[in-house]
Amino acid sequence: MAGDSVEITPEDIERNYPVIQPWVRRTPVLEVAPGDLLGTEATAPPERLTLKLEQLQCGGSFKARGAFTNLLRREVPAAGVVAASGGNHGVAVAYAAHRLGMPAKIFVPSISAPAKIARIRELGADLVVTGDRYADALAAAESWVATAGALSVHAFDQRETLLGQGTLALELVQQASGRLDTVLVPVGGGGLIGGIAAYLTKNVRVIGVEPDGAPTLFRAREQGHPVDAPAGSIAADALAPRRIGELVFPITQDYVDDVVLVGDDAIRAAQSRLWRQFRIAAEPAASVGAAALLTGAYRPGPGEHVAVVISGANLTLPELDG
Amino acid sequence: MAGDSVEITPEDIERNYPVIQPWVRRTPVLEVAPGDLLGTEATAPPERLTLKLEQLQCGGSFKARGAFTNLLRREVPAAGVVAASGGNHGVAVAYAAHRLGMPAKIFVPSISAPAKIARIRELGADLVVTGDRYADALAAAESWVATAGALSVHAFDQRETLLGQGTLALELVQQASGRLDTVLVPVGGGGLIGGIAAYLTKNVRVIGVEPDGAPTLFRAREQGHPVDAPAGSIAADALAPRRIGELVFPITQDYVDDVVLVGDDAIRAAQSRLWRQFRIAAEPAASVGAAALLTGAYRPGPGEHVAVVISGANLTLPELDG
Repeated sequence: MAGDSVEITPEDIERNYPVIQPWVRRTPVLEVAPGDLLGTEATAPPERLTLKLEQLQCGGSFKARGAFTNLLRREVPAAGVVAASGGNHGVAVAYAAHRLGMPAKIFVPSISAPAKIARIRELGADLVVTGDRYADALAAAESWVATAGALSVHAFDQRETLLGQGTLALELVQQASGRLDTVLVPVGGGGLIGGIAAYLTKNVRVIGVEPDGAPTLFRAREQGHPVDAPAGSIAADALAPRRIGELVFPITQDYVDDVVLVGDDAIRAAQSRLWRQFRIAAEPAASVGAAALLTGAYRPGPGEHVAVVISGANLTLPELDG
Repeated sequence: MAGDSVEITPEDIERNYPVIQPWVRRTPVLEVAPGDLLGTEATAPPERLTLKLEQLQCGGSFKARGAFTNLLRREVPAAGVVAASGGNHGVAVAYAAHRLGMPAKIFVPSISAPAKIARIRELGADLVVTGDRYADALAAAESWVATAGALSVHAFDQRETLLGQGTLALELVQQASGRLDTVLVPVGGGGLIGGIAAYLTKNVRVIGVEPDGAPTLFRAREQGHPVDAPAGSIAADALAPRRIGELVFPITQDYVDDVVLVGDDAIRAAQSRLWRQFRIAAEPAASVGAAALLTGAYRPGPGEHVAVVISGANLTLPELDG
């Protein structure tokens, strides 16, 4: 899947924006008092804190951006599209196919959140639950592509997917009031951080945040290339592919400043704070950026304006009742 | 409480904005595809639909705007402030007092949502649960004001409260992309619609929306003056004072184009749509504007750009699980 022409420029992402803009939401930002998230006890709060509310996106996560880019810019055969996904990507491909009137077949592992599975069914996609990890669903999808001739839409390791996810950064830069120093981005397979980093090209510091139970990019950076990593975390249904994408990794090597890890307890605490203080419904995977600030895994410098990407909200509600 | 100098101008509201701006959130808007809310079966969808996400405000509702205006612009005695509230106003006064370091005593009726009561306690206010209607809590608060000398902060019928709520309209006009034709506003005592109407002065059509079980403004318009109305609705904890405010009513007579009613089933359906389609957590009172579009209680004309105010999110989560 890797190739020579993997380079993605900010101009490529700018040109992609009007293609998908009629179909996706321009999700808003919310600037909040850092103390409202971190409490008064925080030792090194950012000077300013902006939340990018991507959980309000079509289908409940940023994945709609990449899904529409694939379906609008690639040749879709009569057999339609197929995706393997821990959940949000499957929802997004089903949503985009539904809106564009294309058939979709979605393979998901059994650990996927019930809310995501239900949503995919509602959107009229043909749903197959198989295996217990993302890689199992991917293998089943690839075998079906080979036999049926459907177009595979990869959750992260696909140029169009990265072009789509990168549009989030384009909006964020336009929306943030004043200079933005740093953006904290959840990392699973790396589609979101790959697109964002390709757009920002170090004009804004990009920090990846992963669950310590699913450190795909963290391990890859240690080794200098993508390697298998564990996949155990409350955020595993969205942030636990086996390894970081082959297309994604070189982009992150060029443009991602650091990757930090957060534990499941911190993720849960951040999720609860986002709900209680801001009435933002964020799934665990979408709460890792806030968790990095809460734990000090990322410590802003003096005067720093930090943005946190709230990437999705496909959760079951009892999660928030803590 | 009524007086001669009740007039509130757009300039008064503009001058109030920088007073409260450091303390409240500039809540974002989200433009959505009308069909995402209304489905493809809608007979007269608006051309464009913008949601004002005021449920993301400090304290979980628009009431923070009025609360901070009162506490920052009126003389607060050592005994602090007191408020009577179906819930959101109590949360807002407790929040503002907490942030500004003032003592607060909050009287709430027993029908108040558990989430709101818990939130008031957490904010360190002295909480008194009394009677089963808003009017009972108000009477208890007034008696305490007389004995203790605390400053009463009225939930709607107070000039400063209206000046604060009006700032929501100021933001909305700045944020909405392109010409805005109409805004749908939930009505209880009328503080929100009074402030919004005073700012918009018919430059944008203002439509009030009430539960049919709590038609305070609807009945007042029929009679030509504030009258007692029933207070039975799933939105009663936030939208059911006994009658519309004395200061509010003349403003609405000048500047509110129409008032429409929606039933509890429609409110519940709208609340569920807001959650499922947009991951917006809206309490029943905050869902009446969407309900008016869903039921056709308000029918936009051709080409109309409609804004809906999502006014608060102080709910218990099982409400959303439908």
